[in-house]
Amino acid sequence: MRGRFIVLEGVDGTGKTTLAGRLADMIGDAAVTSEPTTGRIGAVLRSGELGDIPPAAEALLFAADRAIHTAEMEGILESGRWVICDRYMASTVAYQSAAMGGGADIEWLIEMQRHAVIEPDATFLLDMDPEESLRRVDSRGGGTSRFEKLDFLREVRREYLRLAERFGFSVIDASADRDSVFSEVAGILKEKGLYASERRDILQ
Amino acid sequence: MRGRFIVLEGVDGTGKTTLAGRLADMIGDAAVTSEPTTGRIGAVLRSGELGDIPPAAEALLFAADRAIHTAEMEGILESGRWVICDRYMASTVAYQSAAMGGGADIEWLIEMQRHAVIEPDATFLLDMDPEESLRRVDSRGGGTSRFEKLDFLREVRREYLRLAERFGFSVIDASADRDSVFSEVAGILKEKGLYASERRDILQ
Repeated sequence: MRGRFIVLEGVDGTGKTTLAGRLADMIGDAAVTSEPTTGRIGAVLRSGELGDIPPAAEALLFAADRAIHTAEMEGILESGRWVICDRYMASTVAYQSAAMGGGADIEWLIEMQRHAVIEPDATFLLDMDPEESLRRVDSRGGGTSRFEKLDFLREVRREYLRLAERFGFSVIDASADRDSVFSEVAGILKEKGLYASERRDILQ
Repeated sequence: MRGRFIVLEGVDGTGKTTLAGRLADMIGDAAVTSEPTTGRIGAVLRSGELGDIPPAAEALLFAADRAIHTAEMEGILESGRWVICDRYMASTVAYQSAAMGGGADIEWLIEMQRHAVIEPDATFLLDMDPEESLRRVDSRGGGTSRFEKLDFLREVRREYLRLAERFGFSVIDASADRDSVFSEVAGILKEKGLYASERRDILQ
């Protein structure tokens, strides 16, 4: 049976990494991955070596990295393993539209990713007031990248919420404690019939 | 006055480089450039280091390289210089659609480049029977890249001709001798009111 493809979205500091780890523990044999990837294009994006390039160029690069990543994840899913992916289609739309400002072409940001993505079985948006997520990032000494400014993050959050409504993402209150966040997400996976809690017991 | 933006399209071996040089000589102070660029992303594309990636990923990378290149060319055009660009929007559509085979999504290949391109003042398609262009590439010891196989080139040519009709490119018979090709292109630039033959005399 094909594995399930679960996507976690949200700005830095909302607990995506922690949640991905706990979901992987619950599922038992899930691949946890993130974008931008550690591949050739992801590395160029992370390095900042491109300097100040047009937002559209950056968006196309994220989509190219994603298209390569999607092909790799397809292989894992076909083998029957679950994949939990930290950031996917909506991150490029939310961040790049915020970077492009008022004139952002949301439809283009979605359309140009058409052949770069596959449909996740579930996408969870970890939603939080940007003041709180920024405080969490600062408290762990992560510093603030250029993407992580408060006004910018407010716009990213607004766009994430619009996309959640449009594409049916589950919006999770990420300001709750970690156990509650995990329980809520696990509950939704069960409700959707994607995960049977008995599965692990049977395997054990 | 803003410089003119001239694009040359066509498969390898059709004489784009020679023509670009002669046009630059005629114009006097034109920048001659080509794609994929010598920039960071162009270098990755040329190197082949990405291996066998999905055609859509490759198309997105060409578009990203183009978006960065377009911003650079904009600066040159604003300064009043002409830019002659060897390959642009149509190359990605023609080559990637051929690479994707029968199911190629031409509309997506055009649409995903929307924010990566500007409108050229003129685009010339150097058209030639692929057997002839391939012979010319071989005779200069250029070898044949994976893009330069005959059946593949026939499909690229067909798509180039469709795009020429759709976007109003000037189709030039590139099997003619070099002087004739140059004269025809120069004549079209004059007819379109883009280039006045007197200009160089005035400058001299």
